[in-house]
Amino acid sequence: MAMPSRESANQQVLDRMRSAEPVLVDVAPAIEVVPGFTKNTILTSGPRLPWAEYTGGQRAALIGAARFEKLAASAEEAEARFAAGEILIRGCQELNCVGSLAGVYSASMAVFVVRERASGLEAYCNFYEGSNPKRLNYGVYDQEVHDRLVTINEQIAPILRRVVRDSGEIALKPLMVRALHMGDELHSRNTAAALLFMRELVPAMLSAAASARDESMRLVEALTEDHYFFLRLSMAAAKVTAMAGENVPGSSVVSAMAFNCRNFAVRLACAPDRWFVGPAAKVDAVFFPGHGPDELAWMGGESPIIETIGLGAFSQAAAFPLLRYQGGAAKVMVERNEAMYRITVGEHADYRIPYFEYRGSPVGIDAFKVLETGILPLMNIGIAGRNGGQIGAGSVMAPMECFTAAVDFHRRQYGTNAD
Amino acid sequence: MAMPSRESANQQVLDRMRSAEPVLVDVAPAIEVVPGFTKNTILTSGPRLPWAEYTGGQRAALIGAARFEKLAASAEEAEARFAAGEILIRGCQELNCVGSLAGVYSASMAVFVVRERASGLEAYCNFYEGSNPKRLNYGVYDQEVHDRLVTINEQIAPILRRVVRDSGEIALKPLMVRALHMGDELHSRNTAAALLFMRELVPAMLSAAASARDESMRLVEALTEDHYFFLRLSMAAAKVTAMAGENVPGSSVVSAMAFNCRNFAVRLACAPDRWFVGPAAKVDAVFFPGHGPDELAWMGGESPIIETIGLGAFSQAAAFPLLRYQGGAAKVMVERNEAMYRITVGEHADYRIPYFEYRGSPVGIDAFKVLETGILPLMNIGIAGRNGGQIGAGSVMAPMECFTAAVDFHRRQYGTNAD
Repeated sequence: MAMPSRESANQQVLDRMRSAEPVLVDVAPAIEVVPGFTKNTILTSGPRLPWAEYTGGQRAALIGAARFEKLAASAEEAEARFAAGEILIRGCQELNCVGSLAGVYSASMAVFVVRERASGLEAYCNFYEGSNPKRLNYGVYDQEVHDRLVTINEQIAPILRRVVRDSGEIALKPLMVRALHMGDELHSRNTAAALLFMRELVPAMLSAAASARDESMRLVEALTEDHYFFLRLSMAAAKVTAMAGENVPGSSVVSAMAFNCRNFAVRLACAPDRWFVGPAAKVDAVFFPGHGPDELAWMGGESPIIETIGLGAFSQAAAFPLLRYQGGAAKVMVERNEAMYRITVGEHADYRIPYFEYRGSPVGIDAFKVLETGILPLMNIGIAGRNGGQIGAGSVMAPMECFTAAVDFHRRQYGTNAD
Repeated sequence: MAMPSRESANQQVLDRMRSAEPVLVDVAPAIEVVPGFTKNTILTSGPRLPWAEYTGGQRAALIGAARFEKLAASAEEAEARFAAGEILIRGCQELNCVGSLAGVYSASMAVFVVRERASGLEAYCNFYEGSNPKRLNYGVYDQEVHDRLVTINEQIAPILRRVVRDSGEIALKPLMVRALHMGDELHSRNTAAALLFMRELVPAMLSAAASARDESMRLVEALTEDHYFFLRLSMAAAKVTAMAGENVPGSSVVSAMAFNCRNFAVRLACAPDRWFVGPAAKVDAVFFPGHGPDELAWMGGESPIIETIGLGAFSQAAAFPLLRYQGGAAKVMVERNEAMYRITVGEHADYRIPYFEYRGSPVGIDAFKVLETGILPLMNIGIAGRNGGQIGAGSVMAPMECFTAAVDFHRRQYGTNAD
């Protein structure tokens, strides 16, 4: 059997990723729309670990999600039921969900349903918990966090569901393209994207019954309270975009990057069900007042799916406003963004960076190029603290070990001729 | 009498300009709210000229405004009535209005009323005519232009008036501060500002009677159809901000810059009723398809009031997305923006430029520094064509002659000791 060359396989992945058209089609509880979800399933970020291996904030988030879903009345009961396998843990991306930080999903949580127009593939992401740094996905589950999750499920998601259904489908790519021209990189900054998304919802909000006015205003508040609401839409859009590039034999393009509490890991488009695992990553962060690097804790994170499709740190020269949020210098942001062109297969036809005079963003991370150049993929992420909660934001570099493992696999699978 | 030093006078102007808080308080026909406006008044941009001196698009715009206001049934009748002084021409800024391009105002035209919170000063700006390149303020008056002006007066302004009144006053500075972090420089790009402004209107739009839904949607369309709607708000906000710095004896800070069809001119904060006049300016432009530099025509423009307060070209490193619209290179935008620090008295505490790591924008153009350095103030403007209509956009440099004249005046007024 003649294998396609790695180059032509990678080109095929790139073409599919670049032409993907993610569209928001619904908002619904996970159990209603995510194939394979069950009442006693909890999803979490990164390569799946045995229950005993989950530590710190990721473990706390899993326990919190079980309690939120009333699968356990206490932390002790949750621990026992996880240990007994009565509550099932699965990796978010096993079900085409994508996890922010710890990324926990339980059955009742509202998710965005994002469909790729040509392929019909679907991906899902649950909702941003708001600007309180204490959040379930940052390893905290207390009364405040509980109440906010209830507010999302009972007040924000239902009106958004109605408005999205009244709007018909909402194409996300055009909003993301415009947001890139308005200071967003769609990972750590989604400010313009949220406003553009809100603008799409206005007609349906104005047409809603008068009784929905207060709900509509709560939705507007949630959409615009800070820079992150739209992140979950860009994550689901990125996931379905990356999925569109998967299952191409011979390709060495990365189709997902994710953390759990112990590891960083990547997937390849040629073998999308396998994680290539390395150690945790190193980070340049700015900490919120009163917090410092000693508190930094890993508790999972799948938002680097955004960098996988050429946004986030791969488009950070579109988002100099991040300098206040995650520190650094404009010159460094530019240099690091430029370096990403050396490890990618091509440039995006739609996602373009104004500062680079509208050059397309670097897209399609080639594991071989990472190994050859020694340049590691950069990601813009939120930083979690040892005691839970968000304590800062910054840039992180993927560890080389994942790419070494991925290239080894590729060589075993396709031979060194495919290099 | 001990004159204040030029330095301390300039500092006082700078402080007033920096702390000004422009607030949108109303939308109304010019004749209802602009002191001194009469039924037979037409305003136009720049230093006032005798009727016979108005040429090209600015003359065409004046005639069009007279016909729109039914002060004349034909162009010939308008010419005769202007010549006879039966229709009065005044400079926009004589009435604290500020003119975009030809800047024509007639009595029935809706204007934004922008008040400076501390001083109570008010400035006014009429509405953007929409993305059709043929506009009255670009020297065209045909059926399409007429219909759009009627739409503004009868459909867009009334709903906006109601919504603004229901909203209470809308502080513009916080929106402008945020827009600077979202790719706008508030002159040739006001994209984020319009979305942020719309977000402020949503509560009142949702509360409006069901019958106002269609009107509200027309307003949303007008607000977001392209990059310019908010320009008229940033112009009025800039005008009232510059006014807050005026009437400080001894100051050599520029408080207005404007074109008419023959000249470019500046004012000084020490003598705000006097224009220091020079020739027309030179321009680097990108032309819309099918248009070229041979067609370029001057027909007035007072939007450089925006550069006067440290926005527009003085903040263009906040707006790399302009590279598509007005051409150039990111490096050049940065260098030109940096040069403006050499001709200004200080930096803005609120208007900050992300790319410069949130350095305050250069504000308070000092006529003496312009003369000393030879660096001319830069402005981002729309380009009008010989046959009317917008044919492009670009950057323009003020001519040195205005600053020579302003410094000569200052020396005559305050002596060379004040240098």
